[in-house]
Amino acid sequence: MKTLFKEILHNPLLWLLLFVPVVLVAHKVKPESHTLLFVLSVLAIVPLAALLSHATESVAAKTGDAVGGLLNATLGNLTELVIALTALRAGQYVLVKASVAGAIVTNSLFMLGMCFFLGGLRYHTQEYNRVSARLQSGLLFLATIALLIPSLVARADPIAGAAITHKLSVGLAVLLMVAYACGMFFSLKTHRELFASAGHGEEGETPLPIGVALVTLAIVTVFVALVSEVFVESVQKAAEDFGMTPAFVGFIIVALVGGAAEMASAFSGARKNRLDLSVGIAMGSSSQIALFVAPVLVLLSYVLGPHPMDLQFWPGAVVMIFLSTLTATLVTNSGRSTWFTGLLVMMVYVIFAMTLYLLPPRTQ
Amino acid sequence: MKTLFKEILHNPLLWLLLFVPVVLVAHKVKPESHTLLFVLSVLAIVPLAALLSHATESVAAKTGDAVGGLLNATLGNLTELVIALTALRAGQYVLVKASVAGAIVTNSLFMLGMCFFLGGLRYHTQEYNRVSARLQSGLLFLATIALLIPSLVARADPIAGAAITHKLSVGLAVLLMVAYACGMFFSLKTHRELFASAGHGEEGETPLPIGVALVTLAIVTVFVALVSEVFVESVQKAAEDFGMTPAFVGFIIVALVGGAAEMASAFSGARKNRLDLSVGIAMGSSSQIALFVAPVLVLLSYVLGPHPMDLQFWPGAVVMIFLSTLTATLVTNSGRSTWFTGLLVMMVYVIFAMTLYLLPPRTQ
Amino acid sequence: MKTLFKEILHNPLLWLLLFVPVVLVAHKVKPESHTLLFVLSVLAIVPLAALLSHATESVAAKTGDAVGGLLNATLGNLTELVIALTALRAGQYVLVKASVAGAIVTNSLFMLGMCFFLGGLRYHTQEYNRVSARLQSGLLFLATIALLIPSLVARADPIAGAAITHKLSVGLAVLLMVAYACGMFFSLKTHRELFASAGHGEEGETPLPIGVALVTLAIVTVFVALVSEVFVESVQKAAEDFGMTPAFVGFIIVALVGGAAEMASAFSGARKNRLDLSVGIAMGSSSQIALFVAPVLVLLSYVLGPHPMDLQFWPGAVVMIFLSTLTATLVTNSGRSTWFTGLLVMMVYVIFAMTLYLLPPRTQ
Repeated sequence: MKTLFKEILHNPLLWLLLFVPVVLVAHKVKPESHTLLFVLSVLAIVPLAALLSHATESVAAKTGDAVGGLLNATLGNLTELVIALTALRAGQYVLVKASVAGAIVTNSLFMLGMCFFLGGLRYHTQEYNRVSARLQSGLLFLATIALLIPSLVARADPIAGAAITHKLSVGLAVLLMVAYACGMFFSLKTHRELFASAGHGEEGETPLPIGVALVTLAIVTVFVALVSEVFVESVQKAAEDFGMTPAFVGFIIVALVGGAAEMASAFSGARKNRLDLSVGIAMGSSSQIALFVAPVLVLLSYVLGPHPMDLQFWPGAVVMIFLSTLTATLVTNSGRSTWFTGLLVMMVYVIFAMTLYLLPPRTQ
Repeated sequence: MKTLFKEILHNPLLWLLLFVPVVLVAHKVKPESHTLLFVLSVLAIVPLAALLSHATESVAAKTGDAVGGLLNATLGNLTELVIALTALRAGQYVLVKASVAGAIVTNSLFMLGMCFFLGGLRYHTQEYNRVSARLQSGLLFLATIALLIPSLVARADPIAGAAITHKLSVGLAVLLMVAYACGMFFSLKTHRELFASAGHGEEGETPLPIGVALVTLAIVTVFVALVSEVFVESVQKAAEDFGMTPAFVGFIIVALVGGAAEMASAFSGARKNRLDLSVGIAMGSSSQIALFVAPVLVLLSYVLGPHPMDLQFWPGAVVMIFLSTLTATLVTNSGRSTWFTGLLVMMVYVIFAMTLYLLPPRTQ
Repeated sequence: MKTLFKEILHNPLLWLLLFVPVVLVAHKVKPESHTLLFVLSVLAIVPLAALLSHATESVAAKTGDAVGGLLNATLGNLTELVIALTALRAGQYVLVKASVAGAIVTNSLFMLGMCFFLGGLRYHTQEYNRVSARLQSGLLFLATIALLIPSLVARADPIAGAAITHKLSVGLAVLLMVAYACGMFFSLKTHRELFASAGHGEEGETPLPIGVALVTLAIVTVFVALVSEVFVESVQKAAEDFGMTPAFVGFIIVALVGGAAEMASAFSGARKNRLDLSVGIAMGSSSQIALFVAPVLVLLSYVLGPHPMDLQFWPGAVVMIFLSTLTATLVTNSGRSTWFTGLLVMMVYVIFAMTLYLLPPRTQ
C-alpha cells in the first residue's frame, strides 16, 4: 500500500483523486447543479482512469507476457467500458453509441495524430513497427465494415431493416470478438516475434506489487462506476448549458475524458521517441473499443439494458469511423512519421469536431 | 482420350461427373422437384467446371505464352460465363447481376482469404509477387468505379437516370474491355518480366494433348450449358425451400458453385507455398469477371436477352464490391501474408454472407 | 522586354496570343455569337496561362527557394483563380464550384495519368520521389474530407443544414489554408531535404529577368481577367450549342482550359524522364486548388459575390473528388510508374467524363 501512496504523492495527476469524494458528496447535496457535477466528475474520472490503467499494467507485468497481454487487451479500456455500461443501464443508448464511435475516432485520429506531432516536434523523423500498426488497422478496418452494415441495411429498408438489425448485431458482435481473440492469439502466440519492439508495459513507472494492484483494480473500478453515474446523469444537461450539441458531447467530451489516461502514456512515449508504444496504445485502444467494448455492450444489453441494443449507428458516425480508419490505415502504412503527419491527422479530427459542434441537434 | 479417362479415374472430384446424366434425366422425369434438381445440378457443375478449367489450361500450355495467357484470361471463367448467359437468355437479370457481383466479392474475399489462411497454417509467413497483385487490384479498382457510377446516376435522378443508364453501360462495358485487353498486353508483352514468377498453368497436373483438350472444351461447354439451364431454373425455388434469400443464393451459392474449380487449384497452390499462383487465380478471376464477363454480358444482352441489360447494380452490391476491392487492395499491398491476414479477409466475407442471409427479400 | 518577345517568337503556343485582341474585339462587335466567343476565348486563355506560369516561375527562380516556392505555390494556379473569380463576381456559383471540383479531378487523374502514360511510352519504368507525392496526396485527402462534410450535413438535414453550412464552410476554408501553409513550411523549411529532387522551376526554359517577369505577371493577369469574362459569359450557351451538359463544361472544359499551361510543362517533364517534376505539378496543382483556391473563393465571396458561397458541392462532384483522391493516393504510393499505370488513371477520368457528358442537366 505504501508504494501506492508514494506514487500518488509523486504524480500530480493523482492529486485530482481528491475530487472523487467531492463529486460524490456534491451529488448528494446538490443533485440539480448539473454543470458543477459534470466538471467535478470529469476531474474525478481522469485520475481514476490513470490509476486503473497503472493497476492493470502492474497485474499484466506480473502474470507473464501471454496472460499479461490478454489482461491489458481486455481491461485496457476499462474506464470507457464502465462509463458506457453506466449509460447502458440508464437506457441512454444514444450516448453509449456516440461514446463508442467517439472513442474509435478520437483514438485513431486525435491520439495518434498528437503522438506523431509531439514526437515530431522533438525528433526530425520517427520510425515505428508497422507490422503492429497494420494488425491494428486491419482489425479496425474489419470492425468498420461490421459497423457500416447495420446502418446501410436500416437505410435500405427502414421497416424490415429494424427487425433484422438485432439478429445481425448479435452475429456481428460475436464475429468481432472472435476476430479480436484471433488477433491476440496471432500477436501473442503464433507470430509474436513480429511484434517484438512494441514493448507494452514498460512505461518507466515501477509496477505495483500484485496484491496492491489487484485490490486497487477492484476498488478503483467501483469508484469509476460511482463517478460515471454522476457523469452520465449530468453530461447532457451540462452540455446544453455550455451550448454544446449532444453529438459533440458524446463524440468528443466523453471520448477525451475516458481516454485521458491512455493519452498521457501515449504522448509521453512519443516525446521519448518510443513511437512503437504510442502507436500501439492509440491504434490498440481504437481496435479494442471497436472489437471488444462495443460487442460486449451489445451482448450485455440483453441482460442489463431496458431493451436490447443493436450496432446500428447514426450515418454521420459511420462516415466518421470509416474516414478515421481509412486515414489511420493510410498514415501508418509507411512506418515513419513527422510533425506534419501528425498535424494532418489531427486536422481531420478538428474537421469532425467542428462539424459536430455546429450540427443542429435534430440531425443526430 | 485415354489420358482423359485416366485422369478422371485418379481425381475423385471428377467421379461427380456421374451426376451430369443423372441431373439431365431427373429434369425430364421430375421437372417439379426443384430442391432435388438444384442439388443435383450443383453436384454436376462442379466436376464439369474442373474439367473445363483443366482443358483450358492444357490448350493454353500448348499454344505458347502469349496466346496461352490470352486463352486462360478469356476462358478462365467460362463456367461463370455460361451460367450467366443461361440466366441472361431466361431474362433473369437480377440473378445475372447478383452472380457477377457475387463472383467478384467471393473471389477477392473468400478465395483470396482462404488461400492466405490455408497457406498460413502450413507456412509461417508467405511471400508473393506483389506487382502482379497490384495490376489485378488496379484493374479491379477501375471496374469498381465503373460499376458504381450507373447506380449513383440512377439514385440521383430515378426518371432521367434510367434513360441514360443503358448508353452509359455500353460505354463502360467497352471501356472495361479495352482496359482488360491493355492489361493483358502489359503483362504478357511489354512488361512480362515483372510477372515472371506468377507461373500460370503449372499446377502439377499433366496437360491433356491438344486435340483431346479442344474436344473436351467443346463438349464440356455444351454440358455446362445444359446443366446450367436446370440450375438457373431450380435455384430460386430451391433457395426458398432452404429458407435462403434470393440475394444470398445469387451472391454466395452461385458464386461458390461457379468458382469451385478455380478454388480447388488456388487452395492447393497455397498449401504448396506457391502463393503467386493462388493470388493470381483469386485476383485474376475477380478482375476477369468484372472487366470481361460483365461487359460481355451487357453487350450480348442486346442480341440474346429479351431486352438490353445495364450495369446498374443494387446499391448493396455496389457497397460490397467497393469494400471487397478496397480490402483486397490494402491486403495485397505488402506482398506478404500469414494465417491471420487470411482470416481477416474471410471475416469480411462472412459479414457480407451473414447480412445477405438475414436480409428481407424486398430490399434486394 | 526583348527576352519576352524572343520567347514568344520561339514558342508556337504563344503565337495564340494573337487571339487575345481578337476575342476582346469580337466581344464588342458580336456579343451574341456565344459559340464563336467561347472558341476564341479558349484560344486566347491558353497562351496567356502559359505566359503567366512562365512569369511566375521566373519571379520564383529569382527570389530564392523559400519565397520562390511560396510564390509558385500561391500563383501557380492564378489562371484558374482568375477564371473562378470572374464567375464568382457574376454570381455563377454552380460554375465556380464545378470548375474547382473539375480542376481537382482533372489534375489528379488526367494530368497525372497522362504524365505516367507519356513517360511510360518512352521509358520502361519510371521512378519518382514518393515522399513529395505522399505530402500532396495527404493534403488532398484532408481537403477531400473537408469538401465531403458540408454536402453530407446538407443531405442529413436539408433545412437546418443550409443554415450551418455557411459557418462550417468558413471554418473549413480557414482550416484548409492553415494546413496548406503548414505543408509549405514542412516542405520548404523543416524537412526540405526530403523533397530534394522535386526540382521545381527548372523546366529548361530560361527565366525572364525579374523586372520583365513582374510587369508580365501584372499585365497578363489583367488580360486573363478580361478574357475570362468573355469565357464565363459564353461558356454555358456555347455548351448548349455543342450539345454538352453544364456539368461537363464546368468539370472538363473549364478545367482543361485553365490547366493547359501546367499540363504542357508536366507532359514535357514526363517525356524527359523527370517524373518528379511532373508528379509535383499534377498533384501540387490539385492540392493547391483544393487547399488554397477553393478557400480563397469562399472567403472572397463575402466581399465580391452577390451573397456568400459555401463549400457544399453537388454529391456527384464529391464522389468524383473522393474517388480521384483515392486513386491518386493508391497509385502514387509505390513511387514507380509504367504506361499502364497512366492508362488506368486516365480511364477513371474517361469514366467520369463519359458520365458527365450523358448526365441529364436536371441532376447536377
